[in-house]
Amino acid sequence: MYYGYFNGTIAPTDKLAVGITDLGLLRGYGLFDYFLTYNGRPFQWDWYWERFQNSASRMHLPLPLDKDATYSILMNLIERSVEAGAPEDVAFRFVMTGGYAPDSISIVKPNLLILTEEIHPTPLIQYEQGIKVILDEYVREMAEVKSVDYKRVILMAQAIKSAGASDLLFQKGGEISELSRSNFFIIKGDKLITPNRNILHGITRRTVMQLAQTDFEIEERPVLLSELYDAEEAFTTSSTKKVLPITQIGDLTVGDGHAGPKSAFLLERFNELVKNW
Amino acid sequence: MYYGYFNGTIAPTDKLAVGITDLGLLRGYGLFDYFLTYNGRPFQWDWYWERFQNSASRMHLPLPLDKDATYSILMNLIERSVEAGAPEDVAFRFVMTGGYAPDSISIVKPNLLILTEEIHPTPLIQYEQGIKVILDEYVREMAEVKSVDYKRVILMAQAIKSAGASDLLFQKGGEISELSRSNFFIIKGDKLITPNRNILHGITRRTVMQLAQTDFEIEERPVLLSELYDAEEAFTTSSTKKVLPITQIGDLTVGDGHAGPKSAFLLERFNELVKNW
Repeated sequence: MYYGYFNGTIAPTDKLAVGITDLGLLRGYGLFDYFLTYNGRPFQWDWYWERFQNSASRMHLPLPLDKDATYSILMNLIERSVEAGAPEDVAFRFVMTGGYAPDSISIVKPNLLILTEEIHPTPLIQYEQGIKVILDEYVREMAEVKSVDYKRVILMAQAIKSAGASDLLFQKGGEISELSRSNFFIIKGDKLITPNRNILHGITRRTVMQLAQTDFEIEERPVLLSELYDAEEAFTTSSTKKVLPITQIGDLTVGDGHAGPKSAFLLERFNELVKNW
Repeated sequence: MYYGYFNGTIAPTDKLAVGITDLGLLRGYGLFDYFLTYNGRPFQWDWYWERFQNSASRMHLPLPLDKDATYSILMNLIERSVEAGAPEDVAFRFVMTGGYAPDSISIVKPNLLILTEEIHPTPLIQYEQGIKVILDEYVREMAEVKSVDYKRVILMAQAIKSAGASDLLFQKGGEISELSRSNFFIIKGDKLITPNRNILHGITRRTVMQLAQTDFEIEERPVLLSELYDAEEAFTTSSTKKVLPITQIGDLTVGDGHAGPKSAFLLERFNELVKNW
């Protein structure tokens, strides 16, 4: 059983509910974050908290808790969940909305929800074979804020499935930004290249760039669709995907079509880091 | 006391709550609609239902109820609310989300919420003096679908207040679309002009155009910012605003700066229609 926190109350997640005047529900006004624990400790907590704070500030939502109080809640939730039979490591989901609005439009006080969830690891076969994504002409509004606006990928679910793909790769006017919930990298020789605009600045992206810096020349810059043609490898990063090879982008086969050695090298580095977290 | 319906259950609205795996809450995936009753009867029900159906279809959400069943629920909710002390006329709010998602991303079955609410009439002084709006370079994503995406106006709340304004007027590249939750019209001589792109096709907009057709030449077409300079009058339409004069747009005074006679004429026509609804 998994436990969650909602505005001061801790309870099993299936017992938590949100009143119907919530501005997340009525107006899509909310932000979220998501991260895992390793060895029972929240991974990159400092960075996640910093991002959550920034997102909240950009959306004019005052944080009801400070960093230490939030960390205590995380520890409390892990403890209760583990006591109730959950494994040592969990995923945390933060959702903070504009709160209850009697007039259905004005912010009074945010609602903050912190959930523990089961981790769903990416299937091994996807690491071995790489995934397919399809291109979508789209840019997420306020991409740098981790808002709850994920309409696009839900809207496109059938198109993704029909193409035998796993996700969307967003581009606009020929410039690539990100996948629907993860970042994008290409490798050419010793160059590791990743878009720097219209993206969410992923914590796994940041971690991977840090891990790569001794072996790669890192370029954070606009990346054009045309650059995919001579990319040796491509991969996506997120907390659950880690470093996941992309071998097919629409009709284009990336490199030789196999999950490449350089992505595998970075994944290994990442796995070492989290093993000792 | 006001009553609401949620997935088959009818209860006072303050007793209704939504579980925390709802895709509206987690992913901003939801749509809504809003309309009033006059003389106890839902105003333009046929048109609202048609629009709700279209929005649902565009967002790939199967409707859990048909038109007749929904109408019965509306009547039931009015009856209960009136018995519990509510006035004869209420506002209805529909919210339909992607439903509960165990994996936090896939649609299984939508959640449908139908609420009765107190009507908050627009203050008389706003009809007499007209309102001020400020320009905002923005287009709502999938503007023609009444989704719950109203982030922008909440984000801009402080800017609106600082300017002493009531709302935003969206424009992009010099082309006007709509206010944050209502449509936009200008009047020049006997011409009634309203944008036809990147807008929600409002039911009040449609009603006003129908009421205006004997006295005005109606132009539904792209409207440029430059056309505001020689507009005699401007107004906005929505179910609660009806026909509400706009006398100031950013630094620009519309016409002579007073609520004009032609807007007043259309408001009168509208009030006559609803009086006998």
